Amino acid sequence: MSITSLEDLRNQLGTLREPDESARKRAEAREPQLTKPPGSLGRLEELAAWVSAWQGQHPPQMDSPHICVFAGNHGIVAKGVSAYPQEVTQQMVHGFEAGSAAVNQLSQTFGITLQVIALDLATPTGDFTETSALDEAGFVDAFNRGAAAVPGDADMIGVGEMGIGNTTSAAALCLALYGGDAAAWTGAGTGVAGAALAKKVSVVADGVSRHRSNISDGLDALQKLGGRELVAITGAIVQARQSRVPVMIDGFISSAAAAALETTRAGALDHCLVAHASAEKGHNLLLKSLKKQPLLDLNMRLGEASGAALATAIVKAAINCHNGMATFAEAGVSDKEN
Amino acid sequence: MSITSLEDLRNQLGTLREPDESARKRAEAREPQLTKPPGSLGRLEELAAWVSAWQGQHPPQMDSPHICVFAGNHGIVAKGVSAYPQEVTQQMVHGFEAGSAAVNQLSQTFGITLQVIALDLATPTGDFTETSALDEAGFVDAFNRGAAAVPGDADMIGVGEMGIGNTTSAAALCLALYGGDAAAWTGAGTGVAGAALAKKVSVVADGVSRHRSNISDGLDALQKLGGRELVAITGAIVQARQSRVPVMIDGFISSAAAAALETTRAGALDHCLVAHASAEKGHNLLLKSLKKQPLLDLNMRLGEASGAALATAIVKAAINCHNGMATFAEAGVSDKEN
Repeated sequence: MSITSLEDLRNQLGTLREPDESARKRAEAREPQLTKPPGSLGRLEELAAWVSAWQGQHPPQMDSPHICVFAGNHGIVAKGVSAYPQEVTQQMVHGFEAGSAAVNQLSQTFGITLQVIALDLATPTGDFTETSALDEAGFVDAFNRGAAAVPGDADMIGVGEMGIGNTTSAAALCLALYGGDAAAWTGAGTGVAGAALAKKVSVVADGVSRHRSNISDGLDALQKLGGRELVAITGAIVQARQSRVPVMIDGFISSAAAAALETTRAGALDHCLVAHASAEKGHNLLLKSLKKQPLLDLNMRLGEASGAALATAIVKAAINCHNGMATFAEAGVSDKEN
Repeated sequence: MSITSLEDLRNQLGTLREPDESARKRAEAREPQLTKPPGSLGRLEELAAWVSAWQGQHPPQMDSPHICVFAGNHGIVAKGVSAYPQEVTQQMVHGFEAGSAAVNQLSQTFGITLQVIALDLATPTGDFTETSALDEAGFVDAFNRGAAAVPGDADMIGVGEMGIGNTTSAAALCLALYGGDAAAWTGAGTGVAGAALAKKVSVVADGVSRHRSNISDGLDALQKLGGRELVAITGAIVQARQSRVPVMIDGFISSAAAAALETTRAGALDHCLVAHASAEKGHNLLLKSLKKQPLLDLNMRLGEASGAALATAIVKAAINCHNGMATFAEAGVSDKEN
């Protein structure tokens, strides 16, 4: 898929693919036959049925999970919102390409292929306290690049990001989408505290004030306050839905990007899981707003799809149990007495 | 190691190996040099230091994790406490050996070797409402078989169990160790409810009443109320400590067995993690008593080291990050500005 405008995207969000209830039912019919007390694998059992429904097949597959890490730069860093300089975005992209970052180790550990998509790093988005982060053409381009990154034959995609300054952008996006206090959405990011954090909160509040009258839905908010990597994540999520590829959303920033879709079209994230509860302030509140229960809670706040890689391993394990375990009949194990 | 009596074990618990603080410090010195904001990998960073300390080496290793599943049968099943017949213990052992159970799929998924140790399944322990579950010789034998199962070259061992009736035994053990209401420790196990669950609660209360005056510490309680697989788990845990092998404790039953050590000698579980918060009633209370925060919470309650396998994958990922990531200097990434 690709889009030509925000209005085109709004229209396309009206025709999202639905889950395959027949595949889900076949999974649910197999599960109680497996040699374990019913329900004893907890969320692993739910995952097997959920993946079947969104892949549109039973048995579900998890041989080829894939991760997309999108990178972007942010004009807002001129306001001093990050503990690291902007060039770190490009340096970390080199690290991903060299295989030396956390997400490389994590995806290698679990046999997940990894792709890094750097989005015009030399041209940061506009400073959203002064102008729109992206114009409509910039939004459309980033969205389409995100959509194009999804391998149609992946069994699942994890989406993550790298972008110095993007917790500021994500916090502003959440404030625009859900309201509340700027301070409730604004956290330490890479590690700001004290006066620097107070400044970050006021930047978030100022940015949202400036654009509020021009924001009618999540997509407007994403264009005004987001960044290319956040927009690309939404492109990957929508493309994955249409390609029957379930999605693993990483942490705070990825969830914030995804929330722009959900607030525009309820149910747009039904084919998505959230990997983990990030330690970044605002994520728990965002998870409640999205009504998503993350798979993991390991006090992580790195981004770069690190949580998505770990959570994808859990899904892989769930699918292997569902597909590989023997039934009571096959194993000659006595079933429950009552 | 091996023991000749409970008294011998009490003595040996006085000479447990201590962690290697030098290895821990080397891990803690490397961590902030890696290309990520300090602390951003959360518990993964703690795990790298913790494994280093308990393995007594830096870099830590996680190439050869191993799982021991101990199986035993319980006289208490004569009281109708389980939803499944006793022969299921042996049938599931065949399943583990054939590779068709959940723990087989999970350990294969993550490259964990698996060993199943069936402990005299044809001779269930005594019904603890009428007699002691094990005599001292039976305790010593099960303990030593648990200790002997630990491969000295494993990087970590996960301990789990299979035994129809053993949630009843574990609940009684917890009640004896920590007090409170029998109902607070007694859950559905493989799936009992209503009158059957009420009966199970009264069996637990009766068993503890019967033996209370003969229980002076956790080891006494384990002998009177436990089962061979629970005792073997304690043997594996103590042997692992002396062999510098960190331990991953599975769920409710494994934690209850482990608690018999901790209540006898505080700190005996310092080289152990708890894999997950089991959905079995009593586990959360037990985790609080043990002051252990589990790595996962996936609403599982299967036992057979299924949670330990998943959590070991998280540890493997943590170690791969710690060892495999580049430092800021190696990667040419700019460090924090302040």
